[in-house]
Parts: sequence; structure tokens; C-alpha cells
Amino acid sequence: MAEAKVLSGAGLRGQVAGKTALSTVGKEGAGLTYRGYDVRDLAEHCEFEEVAYLIFFGELPTAAQLAAYKAKLKTLRGLPQALKTVLENIPKEAHPMDVMRTGASMLGNLETELSFAEQQDATDRLLAAFPSIITYWYRFSHDGVRIETETDDDSIGSHFLHLLKGEKPNALHAQTMNVSLILYAEHEFNASTFTARVCASTLSDMHSCVTAAIGSLRGPLHGGANEAAMDMIEKFTSPDHAEQEMLAMLARKDKIMGFGHAIYKDNDPRNGIIKQWSEKLAADVGDTVLYPVSVRCEEVMWREKKLFCNADFFHASAYHFMGIPTKLFTPIFVISRLTGWAAHVMEQRADNRIIRPSAEYTGPELRKVTPIAARG
Amino acid sequence: MAEAKVLSGAGLRGQVAGKTALSTVGKEGAGLTYRGYDVRDLAEHCEFEEVAYLIFFGELPTAAQLAAYKAKLKTLRGLPQALKTVLENIPKEAHPMDVMRTGASMLGNLETELSFAEQQDATDRLLAAFPSIITYWYRFSHDGVRIETETDDDSIGSHFLHLLKGEKPNALHAQTMNVSLILYAEHEFNASTFTARVCASTLSDMHSCVTAAIGSLRGPLHGGANEAAMDMIEKFTSPDHAEQEMLAMLARKDKIMGFGHAIYKDNDPRNGIIKQWSEKLAADVGDTVLYPVSVRCEEVMWREKKLFCNADFFHASAYHFMGIPTKLFTPIFVISRLTGWAAHVMEQRADNRIIRPSAEYTGPELRKVTPIAARG
Repeated sequence: MAEAKVLSGAGLRGQVAGKTALSTVGKEGAGLTYRGYDVRDLAEHCEFEEVAYLIFFGELPTAAQLAAYKAKLKTLRGLPQALKTVLENIPKEAHPMDVMRTGASMLGNLETELSFAEQQDATDRLLAAFPSIITYWYRFSHDGVRIETETDDDSIGSHFLHLLKGEKPNALHAQTMNVSLILYAEHEFNASTFTARVCASTLSDMHSCVTAAIGSLRGPLHGGANEAAMDMIEKFTSPDHAEQEMLAMLARKDKIMGFGHAIYKDNDPRNGIIKQWSEKLAADVGDTVLYPVSVRCEEVMWREKKLFCNADFFHASAYHFMGIPTKLFTPIFVISRLTGWAAHVMEQRADNRIIRPSAEYTGPELRKVTPIAARG
Repeated sequence: MAEAKVLSGAGLRGQVAGKTALSTVGKEGAGLTYRGYDVRDLAEHCEFEEVAYLIFFGELPTAAQLAAYKAKLKTLRGLPQALKTVLENIPKEAHPMDVMRTGASMLGNLETELSFAEQQDATDRLLAAFPSIITYWYRFSHDGVRIETETDDDSIGSHFLHLLKGEKPNALHAQTMNVSLILYAEHEFNASTFTARVCASTLSDMHSCVTAAIGSLRGPLHGGANEAAMDMIEKFTSPDHAEQEMLAMLARKDKIMGFGHAIYKDNDPRNGIIKQWSEKLAADVGDTVLYPVSVRCEEVMWREKKLFCNADFFHASAYHFMGIPTKLFTPIFVISRLTGWAAHVMEQRADNRIIRPSAEYTGPELRKVTPIAARG
């Protein structure tokens, strides 16, 4: 074996592990871009399905292309009976990310991607079916209801809210979901996306790659920050109470979720956008606590630690105002990020070499097996 | 963002992505070691459960420790009804690796690893349950039989063969399975193990890491080489026919599976061992074709291409002589490699930093969104 090159820095931080044409993160003058477009520009002017199309195909769709793509996705919302049966066998107490992971994996048994020619179809199916999968399980396990998952809602975000709450969402909720799904859609070589690419590099199927990525997003160092932020802010009864508690947490050096970022240094470009939508939702529901509490948290963390809110922090209050249970926050992340994962899988496949690094060995020197009777 | 370091070589080949005390691959004077022991030494003197213990705990067990560990594993062979229901809903035509992936994922819903204190228990459960999972599905979907998965077989290998064929295996088959499981147990930072480590680096749960790793092992560039080898050799009616066909394949530059290795340069230390067992099995079943054909394939590939048999090649004939259907070869790899995956997950957790590399951007420059009506 050739001598392996020892690199500085754990976790491959700052080391280029491949090429991508999909996004830039933290590049000067543009905090986050998808295919060259600033995510703020996309969140202001586009629908999520339009952004998904951009991520997959490289260019924004024409009106006709977008209509055709949305029409296709609408036909893919129903779930096969075998998948429903699986979801009905997952208990209420399960981790919703385990449900997503199992749903994706099960779909791979029923609608296997037989060749890479089917990669876009397999992806579109997952994109359309994920809201159905998580809400079917949630409503069955929590409310004992077998929902009909085929709706004629205009968007994936509306479809999700409709299934979750049993009625079509209002325009504000539909718009907020649209923006949220755009903000979470793609983020370069984050851990879940890199997982998907490592899996793809063995030329495995799309469902394996997506299932693997869900497993990584489940980790508390990755997805789940918006849930953790929610768990924190809902304990605060007022901005002053929030400030007092946060200062105490900082003094105890508690981990506070929803702030700072591994790549962004000064701000997360997604925060300003979701914060606006959280503010609109607060006004709409007449909130006088959670939004002001969130704003105070942001002020305290910046003043005390120069830490800024990342994409997750105001997502917590925004989702909460729409009546989404906290435990479903990370599954929404999956619904969105699937676009990035799948596009990275396709990119990896198009110019593949198996991802197989080396390790620095720190174990014992060569030794001989002692007969079992002589051990101990 | 700091400038990322651009590395040469795709797929992180030859680049150190972390530390491990678990194994060495291709190190001079010792082709493959687990915890300092040559795999050939382990395959000659140990049981698979003994090697699993070594991989997990760092030292070979005493006789009492091994007996206790095997007794524990024996109690973990039964499957919960919800998991059986899931397996019954997976069609006969499914890819068996999709079944393994879904089985591991479903178990995570039913017996969630709630904290890292449970990591060994979660691992032992998967180790004991995997043979039950794959054979339960196989026998139900192919034979319409709901098998009882709790047996008192002495080893994991025997348990697997017993469930698959409905009777206790003879000593030769039990020994061969034991050796095979030892040979496949661990292999440093291969793609599936690296997938498990990336997943673990988000502090996700054991079932997510293992599920992700199965997804990577499913890829034809990783697991599955022994199945591909089987598909090839069973077409050859004699050594001369094999030679003629292989020369034609080489002339056409067809990909021939089961030869060569990304890390080993001159030989795969596992090949000599499994070849011996394949020869014993051939004598036992009175084979006069498949083993001689395999030997001729080995000779031709070395003579023509200086390519040696890797671990997979003689596994094909060995498994076939034991009556194992070809489609179950890679799931056996899972049963074995789980030990390595889980040990790597534990090692990653013990000294963790999230694995989050950078990418070289090759996409379009910053651009503005054109109104949809103006596109096209």
C-alpha cells in the first residue's frame, strides 16, 4: 500500500472531498447559492418545486416546465398498501426520523430503482411521497386515523400541512412552507449529503443513498437543531425570562442549539428570511410571547457570544405557529433536503470513483492468538 | 470561510480520514489484522463470536467470557411481530440487501438505541437478529413458510444455515460459515464502514449507522462481488470452457468480478483460507466442475493479467456447495461486517468530530432569478 497522506484537522474540515456544481456555502458576497442563484433571491421569487427543478436540472423551469413537473409530482402522492402496513406497525413512541428512514427503505423494496435511467423518477416519487409517509404514520399512530394521502394541493408544502391537519392550509401557511422548503433544500457537502455521496460511490441505488442520508440527518449534531430550539424557547414565558435563563445557560456552558454554524462565520443567510415569516405568522396568530422571546434570544446570543441565529432558530417558532408538532420538524427537513441529496447522488454517479479513504492505525502491534484455555 | 485544501486523487484514495485501532489492511508482513491479530491466525484458531468479541472489546475473550457472550447472543434471535409483519410485506422480487436495510431500520423503530450506553446491546441484538431477519423474509416470500427463528444452534453461522434450510448444518458447513464470517468481519475504512462513521459523526443512533452502511454495501462496486463471481462461474461447464470464456471476456475488456483489490497489491490474505474450505466442500459434495473451474479462473487471471483472487472469488463456490442461494451471499456479508461497522461507530463516538468536508465548486457564477414568464 502506498503511504497514506496524513491530513490535519478532524472530520475532513476544510478538505475538498469532491466537486459539485450544485451550491456554494459561505462564499464571499453570496452566503448560499443553488446553481448560481442566491437562496434569498430564490426564496423571494420562486416556488419550492421550481427550486427542486433547478437543483435537479441545472436551470430554472419555464412556466410550462414547472406546471408539468408539479403535475407529475401530484400523481405520486399515494402510498402502496404494503408501505401503509409498515407505517401502521411503527409505534407512536418511535423517533419520526426512524419512520422516515424506514419509509424510504421500504419504498426501495416496492419500487426499486432498477437502473440509473430511473434516478429522476425514483427521486420525484420520494419527493412526492415523503409528506404522505410521515403524516400517514403520525395520524395513524397518534390519532388512530388512516388518512387518504392523495390530495390535489398545489404544492408539496400545502400537501404536507393538509394531510397533517386534515384541511387545506391558508395562503400564509402555504407560503411559509414553500419558503422553508427552499431554505433547507441544499447545502453542499454537509454530513448527510456526504453520506449520500459515499453510498452513491459504490453505485448503490437511490433509496439506499437517501435512507443513509436520513440516518445522518437524524443525529443531533446535524438535523434536529430546530426541535432543540423549540424545546428551549417554549419554556420561556417572556423576553426577560428568556434573557435570564439564557444567561444562566451560558454561565453553565450549556449547549444552546440554533446558533452559530460550522461554515458561516458572521451570519446565516437563511435566518433573515425565515425570521420575517415567523414574524408574519406571530402577527397572524396574535402571539405576544414566542416571537418576542425568540428575538430576545437572538439579541442575547449576539451580545454575549457574537453567535448569530442559524437557519434553524426562527424555523422553530415559524413551524410552531403553523401548528406543526415539534417532533415533525426534522422530517420536514428531510422532505426539503431530499432535493439536494438526490442531486448529489446523480452528480456523484456521473463522475464516480468509490470513496474509500485510509485510516491512521493506532492499535496494537502484530501479535499471535493465545489458545483460549491459556487466556485470562 | 477559510480556503479549502484541494487534494489530489478522487474518492479520498490514500488520504487519512481518521484514526482506528481496529484493523490494518495491506500493511507489510500482515495482509489483514484485527486488533493486531492476523486474520489467518484468527480464522484458524477462533470462532466468529470470539472474533466479534475481540473487535468490540479489544481483546480475545477467555473461555468463560466467550461462553457468556454466546449465551447472550442466543437469547436475541427472536423477532418482534411488527418486524415479522414488515418482512412479510416485502415481495419475493425485492433485492435481499433492501430487505436487510429495511429490517435494520425497522428494528430501530421497535428497539431504539436511546443512549450510547446501549450501543453494545443494540449491536448484539442486530448481530443475533440479522440471520433471523433475512431467512424469515426469504422463507416466507419464497416458500410461504413462517419460520420459528429461535434456535439453540451453537453459532451465528449455524443459526443462519439452520433457518435457511430447516435443519441443523453438519460440522463442515458450520465450520465454513464460521471461517467466512471471520474473514468478512472488518476491513478498515472501506466505503460502507466510512458511511457508518460519517453517519455516526452526527451522533446518530446505531440503527441509522448500520442501515446506512448496508445501503453502501449494496452497491456493485462494494458488496456483491461474490454474487457476480457465482453468476459467472456457474455458466462454465469445464475448466477448458472457463478458460476459453475468460479469454474472450478479457479480449472484450468485460469487467470480471472477484479479482484484484483497491488496497492489496499482490494477493488478498483471505483468499487462501476460503479456497481451502471451498476445496473441502467440493470433495464433500463430490463436485467435479465448479471447484476445478474456479481454480482455472484463478490461473487464467493471474497468467493473463497478474490479478489475484480476492476474498469474494472462492466464497462463491463455497457458499454454493452449502446450498446457499446466490442472492443471499451479500446479506451474509452484512451479518459478518456488522461487527466492524458497529466497532467503528463506537470508535467514532469515543473521539468525535462531525465529518463535513468541503467541495470544489464547478457550477455557474452568481446570477439573478429571471421572472418565470420571461424564461425559455
